[in-house]
Amino acid sequence: MIIEIRATGKAIPSTRLSNDDLAKTLDTNDEWITSHTGIKARHIADEATACSDLALEAARQALALVITQEGTPEQTIEDAALTVDLIILGTATPDYHGCPSTACIVQDKLGARNAFAMDISAGCTGFIYGIETAAALLAYTPSRKRALVIGSEILSRFTDWHDRKSCVLFGDGAGAVLLEKTFEPQDGSPTKRGILQTILGADGSGAEHIIIRRGGSRSAFKTGDFIDVPPVLEMNGQAVYNFAVKSITETIEKLLAAENITIDAVQWIVPHQANRRILTAAGKRLGIPEERFFLNLDEYANTSAASIPIALDELNRGGKLQKGDIIMIIGFGGGLTSGGSLIVW
Amino acid sequence: MIIEIRATGKAIPSTRLSNDDLAKTLDTNDEWITSHTGIKARHIADEATACSDLALEAARQALALVITQEGTPEQTIEDAALTVDLIILGTATPDYHGCPSTACIVQDKLGARNAFAMDISAGCTGFIYGIETAAALLAYTPSRKRALVIGSEILSRFTDWHDRKSCVLFGDGAGAVLLEKTFEPQDGSPTKRGILQTILGADGSGAEHIIIRRGGSRSAFKTGDFIDVPPVLEMNGQAVYNFAVKSITETIEKLLAAENITIDAVQWIVPHQANRRILTAAGKRLGIPEERFFLNLDEYANTSAASIPIALDELNRGGKLQKGDIIMIIGFGGGLTSGGSLIVW
Repeated sequence: MIIEIRATGKAIPSTRLSNDDLAKTLDTNDEWITSHTGIKARHIADEATACSDLALEAARQALALVITQEGTPEQTIEDAALTVDLIILGTATPDYHGCPSTACIVQDKLGARNAFAMDISAGCTGFIYGIETAAALLAYTPSRKRALVIGSEILSRFTDWHDRKSCVLFGDGAGAVLLEKTFEPQDGSPTKRGILQTILGADGSGAEHIIIRRGGSRSAFKTGDFIDVPPVLEMNGQAVYNFAVKSITETIEKLLAAENITIDAVQWIVPHQANRRILTAAGKRLGIPEERFFLNLDEYANTSAASIPIALDELNRGGKLQKGDIIMIIGFGGGLTSGGSLIVW
Repeated sequence: MIIEIRATGKAIPSTRLSNDDLAKTLDTNDEWITSHTGIKARHIADEATACSDLALEAARQALALVITQEGTPEQTIEDAALTVDLIILGTATPDYHGCPSTACIVQDKLGARNAFAMDISAGCTGFIYGIETAAALLAYTPSRKRALVIGSEILSRFTDWHDRKSCVLFGDGAGAVLLEKTFEPQDGSPTKRGILQTILGADGSGAEHIIIRRGGSRSAFKTGDFIDVPPVLEMNGQAVYNFAVKSITETIEKLLAAENITIDAVQWIVPHQANRRILTAAGKRLGIPEERFFLNLDEYANTSAASIPIALDELNRGGKLQKGDIIMIIGFGGGLTSGGSLIVW
């Protein structure tokens, strides 16, 4: 059985906030932000846009791409939506707290009436968790053939815009992939295709290092509360840095060992786009040149669960992937969680 | 391959709030609540207890049960925790909004260091979605053997205690099951064991019918907001009733057809415990006597994703299940979502 990425899509809000824009109201500057993070800009959703709106647009783009491909009988996005068996949406910023899931809202607006739908919460690793969950659910039941895996975030709404250290880090966006299950080709073409291997991990001892403290059952709002600072994503930068460098290194080593290949066989490492320094440190530790990592955090900053599928869509539409290329996607983040997949494009 | 429920556990807060207790401060009474819902009481967590606390206790109970069973090499809960490969937690009331997942907190406190962990959001159907997700993830990778599937809710913290129609409906609690993957028995014992079949569905067009409107990216809190009414679960009772009766009926019919059995072969139908009237109507439509449904909503009310695993634990520990019994678990709820599994105990 082969589970492949058939198509990709993304949604990026049009409002672009550069480092210079931020420096107008914050005591910071482009040089400091760039040298400490690699980030030059981030895109911010307007007030009317929630997580499901970006997710829907990314999903539609993926379906629009798949119907242009040879061998796809569906003619319209609406046709293609009806072929989707499940929707898995990774997010830390769902439309609604707790219920309903953002995936259900996307399911309805996309017209994916035959799909079941759920959100998963695994922090910035949500897309990797989503890929493994969707692949397993496709593999488990013969009748399931196609899955949408979406990462979508409106982090700007959970950002402390007065904290110059954290607010420069985050952006909004969504990415989606359409996974498809096929069987071993009969025509002699290579059978090593699609998702070869996924590794997932968690270390809840670091749960406090990336956290939105208020609003859940641990610290719910009560009648009479006054919102001084809204619920925002707090991050212990040093602890996250240490975890990230360690988990990226270990995940890459395990994936290579599992398939018995060296890093030279890998065209692109597509990491979660959190901070350039993390990736530089991990690359150094592994002896991997930095240009092997695909980076777009300069333009989008950290979009949490959305960063990897956005990057995949840019690689895909940018013509930077050839059929047969081996790529690695590597995630890490709140939970703490980590994971990675080795994929033959 | 066989994926079985090896053990169950639950956690119920000790504070019990009867209908008569509620009638002291609300314009309602035991007769009205009982006749309209079948509910006589609900259990309410104290202020210091969050979703992960109940989930952890339920998980510990399941592990405590498994180590007493023949053929389990692990001697302690700590040993057993190390054998868990994944933790899937269904909830609408996570400890924290968005990040970190409640599953990661449980993973840490349980000492399940080898497990990856995520929350899933599928409303009251969260446990059924969790069962299917965990089973698929176990089946997908040879090295994975055991999964904890938990449903845990602190609904009392997202309940409008001034609304006499809704506040009588909800309670707090958690339930957990330990799933284990084994292979076809070589000793001639029956191979039809464990989870035979799961069906999942979603209908996002009803997303507004069960909803916590504030706190997510669609309606985030802002500096200067005053909390008049905290975020609470709002429900369109008539719409949910119609959806529930229809989805229960269809799910039961599909499960029976898929395994080519009649309802007479099923010992227990274990439904999500929302409202007795829903189950009476579904039973009538299908010609199933009401005593075939296992009900405990009189004592716990609607505990959302926790209700089915709590019921399973009561059946299991109450000696009401024999090896080889066929049972059905049936969920429905926010999203809207629905689903069910046919299980040989």
